[in-house]
Amino acid sequence: MNKTILTLLAVVLLFNCSTAQKVAETQAIDKAQVKASMIKALEWQEAHPIIAIAPTDWTNGAYYTGVARAHKTTKDMMYMAALKNQGYWNKWQTFSRLHHADDVAISYSYLYIDMTDSRRNFVDLEPTKKFLDAHLYEDDIWKRGTRKNEMGQTILWWWCDALFMAPPVLNLYAKHTKQPKYLDEMHKFYMQTYNQLYDEEEQLFARDMRYVWKGSDKDKKEANGKKIFWSRGNGWVFGGLALILDDMPQDYKHRPFYEKLYKELAAKMLEIQPEDGLWRTSLLCPESYNHGEVSGSGFHTFALAWGINNGLLAKKHIPAVKKAWNALAGCQHEDGRVGWVQNIGASPEPASKDSWQNFGTGAFLMAGSEILKLN
Amino acid sequence: MNKTILTLLAVVLLFNCSTAQKVAETQAIDKAQVKASMIKALEWQEAHPIIAIAPTDWTNGAYYTGVARAHKTTKDMMYMAALKNQGYWNKWQTFSRLHHADDVAISYSYLYIDMTDSRRNFVDLEPTKKFLDAHLYEDDIWKRGTRKNEMGQTILWWWCDALFMAPPVLNLYAKHTKQPKYLDEMHKFYMQTYNQLYDEEEQLFARDMRYVWKGSDKDKKEANGKKIFWSRGNGWVFGGLALILDDMPQDYKHRPFYEKLYKELAAKMLEIQPEDGLWRTSLLCPESYNHGEVSGSGFHTFALAWGINNGLLAKKHIPAVKKAWNALAGCQHEDGRVGWVQNIGASPEPASKDSWQNFGTGAFLMAGSEILKLN
Amino acid sequence: MNKTILTLLAVVLLFNCSTAQKVAETQAIDKAQVKASMIKALEWQEAHPIIAIAPTDWTNGAYYTGVARAHKTTKDMMYMAALKNQGYWNKWQTFSRLHHADDVAISYSYLYIDMTDSRRNFVDLEPTKKFLDAHLYEDDIWKRGTRKNEMGQTILWWWCDALFMAPPVLNLYAKHTKQPKYLDEMHKFYMQTYNQLYDEEEQLFARDMRYVWKGSDKDKKEANGKKIFWSRGNGWVFGGLALILDDMPQDYKHRPFYEKLYKELAAKMLEIQPEDGLWRTSLLCPESYNHGEVSGSGFHTFALAWGINNGLLAKKHIPAVKKAWNALAGCQHEDGRVGWVQNIGASPEPASKDSWQNFGTGAFLMAGSEILKLN
Repeated sequence: MNKTILTLLAVVLLFNCSTAQKVAETQAIDKAQVKASMIKALEWQEAHPIIAIAPTDWTNGAYYTGVARAHKTTKDMMYMAALKNQGYWNKWQTFSRLHHADDVAISYSYLYIDMTDSRRNFVDLEPTKKFLDAHLYEDDIWKRGTRKNEMGQTILWWWCDALFMAPPVLNLYAKHTKQPKYLDEMHKFYMQTYNQLYDEEEQLFARDMRYVWKGSDKDKKEANGKKIFWSRGNGWVFGGLALILDDMPQDYKHRPFYEKLYKELAAKMLEIQPEDGLWRTSLLCPESYNHGEVSGSGFHTFALAWGINNGLLAKKHIPAVKKAWNALAGCQHEDGRVGWVQNIGASPEPASKDSWQNFGTGAFLMAGSEILKLN
Repeated sequence: MNKTILTLLAVVLLFNCSTAQKVAETQAIDKAQVKASMIKALEWQEAHPIIAIAPTDWTNGAYYTGVARAHKTTKDMMYMAALKNQGYWNKWQTFSRLHHADDVAISYSYLYIDMTDSRRNFVDLEPTKKFLDAHLYEDDIWKRGTRKNEMGQTILWWWCDALFMAPPVLNLYAKHTKQPKYLDEMHKFYMQTYNQLYDEEEQLFARDMRYVWKGSDKDKKEANGKKIFWSRGNGWVFGGLALILDDMPQDYKHRPFYEKLYKELAAKMLEIQPEDGLWRTSLLCPESYNHGEVSGSGFHTFALAWGINNGLLAKKHIPAVKKAWNALAGCQHEDGRVGWVQNIGASPEPASKDSWQNFGTGAFLMAGSEILKLN
Repeated sequence: MNKTILTLLAVVLLFNCSTAQKVAETQAIDKAQVKASMIKALEWQEAHPIIAIAPTDWTNGAYYTGVARAHKTTKDMMYMAALKNQGYWNKWQTFSRLHHADDVAISYSYLYIDMTDSRRNFVDLEPTKKFLDAHLYEDDIWKRGTRKNEMGQTILWWWCDALFMAPPVLNLYAKHTKQPKYLDEMHKFYMQTYNQLYDEEEQLFARDMRYVWKGSDKDKKEANGKKIFWSRGNGWVFGGLALILDDMPQDYKHRPFYEKLYKELAAKMLEIQPEDGLWRTSLLCPESYNHGEVSGSGFHTFALAWGINNGLLAKKHIPAVKKAWNALAGCQHEDGRVGWVQNIGASPEPASKDSWQNFGTGAFLMAGSEILKLN
């Protein structure tokens, strides 16, 4: 009978994110529990499909990237069933704006299925190829820079989220089709974004040019006077970077650049990790919305754990990563919903216990997929 | 431990609809509980899609009207996710019979999304426009009256259900597109149906001409000798009327007609409400199937609560409405299924604890959406 | 309180398949419980759609055949809702390889809906007709035997699974459209397969020519020296046979052949049924993977119970069938998942508590549908 009471208490505690965060630091990781939490997240999300623009939009792209990573680690066919199902009904299409990095994020899952599932010719990679070629080689208003505006739309990937959306797909496509030119193109455009949005002093990415300080009175500032660095925005970069490094050839000439960038972001994220394990939506002004946010934190946790698992980050950081995971797990509702996810946006905004998005679930699955590999 | 026992007991009680009905009268409304019941109903229904003819048929139209109203009150994105998902996969189509009011009911949800969701051009209203124009202005067999038969198919909306299916859509379309002509057309056809099917003596609608007494021996009668007035049939009219009034301009010239009709139906429904709160499928012969039926009762509860919330009905009727809601909630299974819904039909038939339909869930959500606004 | 503890214990026990198998022999059948288990299986499977090649592939064909049989017995509209939903979204298509029996298995569900649902013209049987005509009458590489290889592809249905995939559909199509020629064609091709793969000595079917002994050293053998007879492969034949007999005219000239074959297979299955009720993946070498497997056992249980219910098998075998069902039910997880299903394959391989497939759920539903009819 005591067990029943304990189970009920556990459930009640799980609902209380902040309480859970407090116990996260000292808790060990139970891998069977991690797997169960991940499957519950998948099942809840599959039962609650959500479309921002289309089932092939970036929100679903990020979610199914998380599902793909979860499958890569666990080999649980629950994930592959979901992956194949969405790809089939989406007819393996990207979304439609060929100059927009967001619209090819879904192809990460298509590529993963094609590289993994035993059935030949199940996936149709033609729409992905068509998108990538148009995206890289065709003239468009963004590359031409005719849409110069305060957001900084003079380059192809003018907002930092883009570094999650397209580069991992290009990297994986180059690997899968054995065409290094796609990786070289990725690097070219990646550098444009890096040069424009990376803040070397703070070692974080501005979301877009609106958030880059120009030394004017109009520079956007947080209440505490600091620059605005959005947690999820940096999560897109940091998580995307781990995805890229995971499939980039060890001897690729530009790999050292990505490893260096990874280490800088990792050091920064560890330095500013809040006590309870989860990052706030405004990284340098945690007090503005003083609660953990799951989408950004999920990506950070994924990237940090990936670094430990792949020798780019010292094992001494395992406790910090465990703490982050336990706190993430504490934000999952009993029914599987991953809460405390900031809504679609472009800058720090608050989340709540109930706020959810498919990409938040994706970030959660990505984090779990590397947590499972920690020794 | 006592809490566990109480919870288990509560669950058992909820399954027993008639028992629940008995406690409904004295129970207060817990709004958090109402919201939770509504979400469970949504989740169960989304997990159990049901097609009578197509995903765009009137059964889904009525269901997603309920989902739209639930979103309008709560702003919970669970509802909007479901709304957008169905619209997207339905490609914003109506169903195909352009002269049939049923087949445009789904457009209520499309219009709601277009009026509410921040994303521009997500909804395609062209199929709705095409339907409405054909429905109103093109010649067809029903309008021509060449199908004169015992059902009374000499007018466009020859059965009372039609007053839920097309008029609220026309009304909302007129408002959204700022084209009052659609409202005027609505009124024209509404009056035809009113004149043909409204029983001024009983203040209820006959389902169709088969149920209108002509003073002949062949007039259909209940076992108790009274006229047959179908609860859901009148629910379609009464619920539809609240939908129409909610979006009809306050200064519309024919508004007084709709307000008067609303008040007559409301008075009648309150007068004949059974002790346990839920209406029987045969309104004037409750003893024929002596149990509460949820689809009709859901619409009645919605309309009554809407009237209180909008000043057309006195607040003294709040206890009757609360009693109805508590009884409705008692018909929901623990897993979210809304039971005690009469199957598709055209006249009073019994329901059962397990009988469900998407439009029953829609009626439940509509009721809840106004219950939440009661003070 | 004792009830709570008992419920919890029951749940724990259910998860332990082998334990459940031990109690299965003596347990009576609670039909309300059987129905509840079947609905849970349906709900879990609908929430976890899985595609091998397409939603119209044979795996879904076998699953929805099970759903159709469950509806036929229970009339529960939960099954019909699922059937209609898949058919609608599949646009009533078969899968694409017109010479491949697998690709028409889905049409069993389409035919069932068309024969059962009250709505006229909801189902489009044209794609099924087109498939069947091409399959039977058009020249193809398999019928021509130009692909002679070790699998024995010199006949249309060269693997025993095919006897589940196409013959029941042809049989039902002949009945529904009153065209006995389809039944005659079925018989012609059935006999080819029977002659090639039926082992008269063992009274079991080889999966394909690779498993038929030719008296050479290269003949495939189990570790114990016996022939390899795959449980699910024989389940396809045995379950398919019950489906065929169920709708074959009583006076069909070749019916005695099918009844005789049914009785031989039934006798064999009863003879080799393991103590705990469930057949092993290798029928004559149970020790190779010594645990019950659910897809094969589900089909065997269905066919045996069908025989009892239809007078082809003596009632004295009811205990054996009950034992099998109770053991099957013990392999269902608390959340509805039907576990212990061998993955897609062509020969005996192990399963596990968690391994599932839609066709395993189909076999489970088929078994339950006949268990419910046992007196």
